[in-house]
Amino acid sequence: MLTIDIHTHILPKNIPDWKSKFGYGGFIQLEHHQPCCAKMIRDDGKFFREIEENCWNPEARIKECNHHEVHVQVLSTVPVMFSYWAKPQDTADLAHFLNEHIAQITTQYPKRFIGLGTVPLQNTPLAIKVLEECKSMGLKGVQIGSNVNQKNLDDPSFFDFFEACQNLGMAVFVHPWEMMGQEHMQKYWLPWLVGMPAETSRAICALIFGGIMQRLPGLRIAFAHGGGSFPATIGRIEHGFNCRPDLVAVDNPVNPREYVGKFWFDSLVHDEQMLQFLVNFAGANRVALGSDYPFPLGENIPGSLIKKSDFPNTIKEQLLHKAALDWLNLDKSMFI
Amino acid sequence: MLTIDIHTHILPKNIPDWKSKFGYGGFIQLEHHQPCCAKMIRDDGKFFREIEENCWNPEARIKECNHHEVHVQVLSTVPVMFSYWAKPQDTADLAHFLNEHIAQITTQYPKRFIGLGTVPLQNTPLAIKVLEECKSMGLKGVQIGSNVNQKNLDDPSFFDFFEACQNLGMAVFVHPWEMMGQEHMQKYWLPWLVGMPAETSRAICALIFGGIMQRLPGLRIAFAHGGGSFPATIGRIEHGFNCRPDLVAVDNPVNPREYVGKFWFDSLVHDEQMLQFLVNFAGANRVALGSDYPFPLGENIPGSLIKKSDFPNTIKEQLLHKAALDWLNLDKSMFI
Repeated sequence: MLTIDIHTHILPKNIPDWKSKFGYGGFIQLEHHQPCCAKMIRDDGKFFREIEENCWNPEARIKECNHHEVHVQVLSTVPVMFSYWAKPQDTADLAHFLNEHIAQITTQYPKRFIGLGTVPLQNTPLAIKVLEECKSMGLKGVQIGSNVNQKNLDDPSFFDFFEACQNLGMAVFVHPWEMMGQEHMQKYWLPWLVGMPAETSRAICALIFGGIMQRLPGLRIAFAHGGGSFPATIGRIEHGFNCRPDLVAVDNPVNPREYVGKFWFDSLVHDEQMLQFLVNFAGANRVALGSDYPFPLGENIPGSLIKKSDFPNTIKEQLLHKAALDWLNLDKSMFI
Repeated sequence: MLTIDIHTHILPKNIPDWKSKFGYGGFIQLEHHQPCCAKMIRDDGKFFREIEENCWNPEARIKECNHHEVHVQVLSTVPVMFSYWAKPQDTADLAHFLNEHIAQITTQYPKRFIGLGTVPLQNTPLAIKVLEECKSMGLKGVQIGSNVNQKNLDDPSFFDFFEACQNLGMAVFVHPWEMMGQEHMQKYWLPWLVGMPAETSRAICALIFGGIMQRLPGLRIAFAHGGGSFPATIGRIEHGFNCRPDLVAVDNPVNPREYVGKFWFDSLVHDEQMLQFLVNFAGANRVALGSDYPFPLGENIPGSLIKKSDFPNTIKEQLLHKAALDWLNLDKSMFI
């Protein structure tokens, strides 16, 4: 059964020395300290993450995909590369570099990879320009953060960008990053285990309550990690909307539950019961396999939770490729 | 069927002028601006919340309880009263005042109310002293915040307090407050809709990964709002524990899922499917009716989600009183 993984990350093997190029630091570099292994290190020396060859080498990825029976990966950069904090033109240059790399791989292996770009979302006109470039490069959408320098996605400055995504037919993938509360919960990986699910709910709530979902019904938008804490707290969120409209319904008059089924989630919940809940909640046509490949917090064998589930094949088909193709507005025939 | 609501808040009708008494501000006052209505206002003039008579008058509460067929309420203060930021002895004085008020009501109406105290958790020896006072007053446990001045509950300074709770047989109710990220999500009530569920997961994760749950197997501890985002993200949390033990398993060697069923959740999820998920997850003997009465984000008719559910009566019995009695270590015969 055709299997598309909408949530995978990739980096170029070699990353320029942005600090020298731009004249200030804060950017991520790769240090290839042994064959097939590299450290992601911020240019002030702060270690971020150890990565392996499958993070940059498309052939290594294809080999693992073949082994896992994943036919297509949707490629996006690693969120730490968003660099929304930098000078907008510098972020645009960095984005261009990353986007070209992804576009080149999707051109080389059009049946195995689909590409999402990154944009300098701290500056909307420039983000739209880079979005247009992404489209002309053959990328099918963009990945953005759950907040932009702690501004929420309902900030009026972002509206034109989302409208451009809708008008250009570019899909949007929202990934948590710059996690709320991380300064106070450094132990036990809590920014990843607690902060990230909250970030995703923050992003969904901002897009709903800010009226973006209402004003842009053609926007195709997906959220990582099964929507984080949003699906499980829909009751609380809806009740808040109903009981305190003076606080919650100020920019959007529609019950938040009405939007469920209009956007997509990836399937990365690592729990059979929760996957069942998510599918009941959003509809199987709105849940698409996402694995966070090649990172350890992802699904070890992409697709295995779905494949070994009790869902009938018609549902599995939706989870493994139909929902993804709908979200990306692509046709199955491109990949088989 | 005996119905106990473990999550209700109460305040004394008249609150002293703590600012004058202590010589510095930051405390909540009540301004009774018309009959049966008061404003909770911080002593610097910042409005917090409008409340009604059912927030302070036990007879008004009993009348509503009778109407809703709730037989017993577990009373706790409003989290904004925790005042962990103040000088410890001042917080202890404030706590003593609140605790005596609750104890007096439970003494007056022993079949209708059970009391939880509040403690100055910023100072563990003093918190233990107030905890002992709570017990001697007849309170059955304490309510604490999800963090203490942004310190997590695994902070070694709190261990002796939790140990004292275990040794004194005092139940603990953890309520989210001082929500992560609130400074960046002021619109749409997001600190309550997104931040609170994350706070509760933060508290549960801290108690598990900090080894407190492991070291204190006799601690009876319950978490508000159905455990916030914790139950729905257990897969992610467990996977984090498994894949990065170097980050997550540093103070506790046991899979976090092993603790599920050892602590309690209230039932406040406002969603039938999620209540079903929660009961499957934790066991019906670990989910106790909680309504957040008398606040609007609570369940309008306490117990209605459970009562109108499809659960068989044996399960409803657990949700409506057995889980609560287990958590509080009390006998049904005290209330009927």
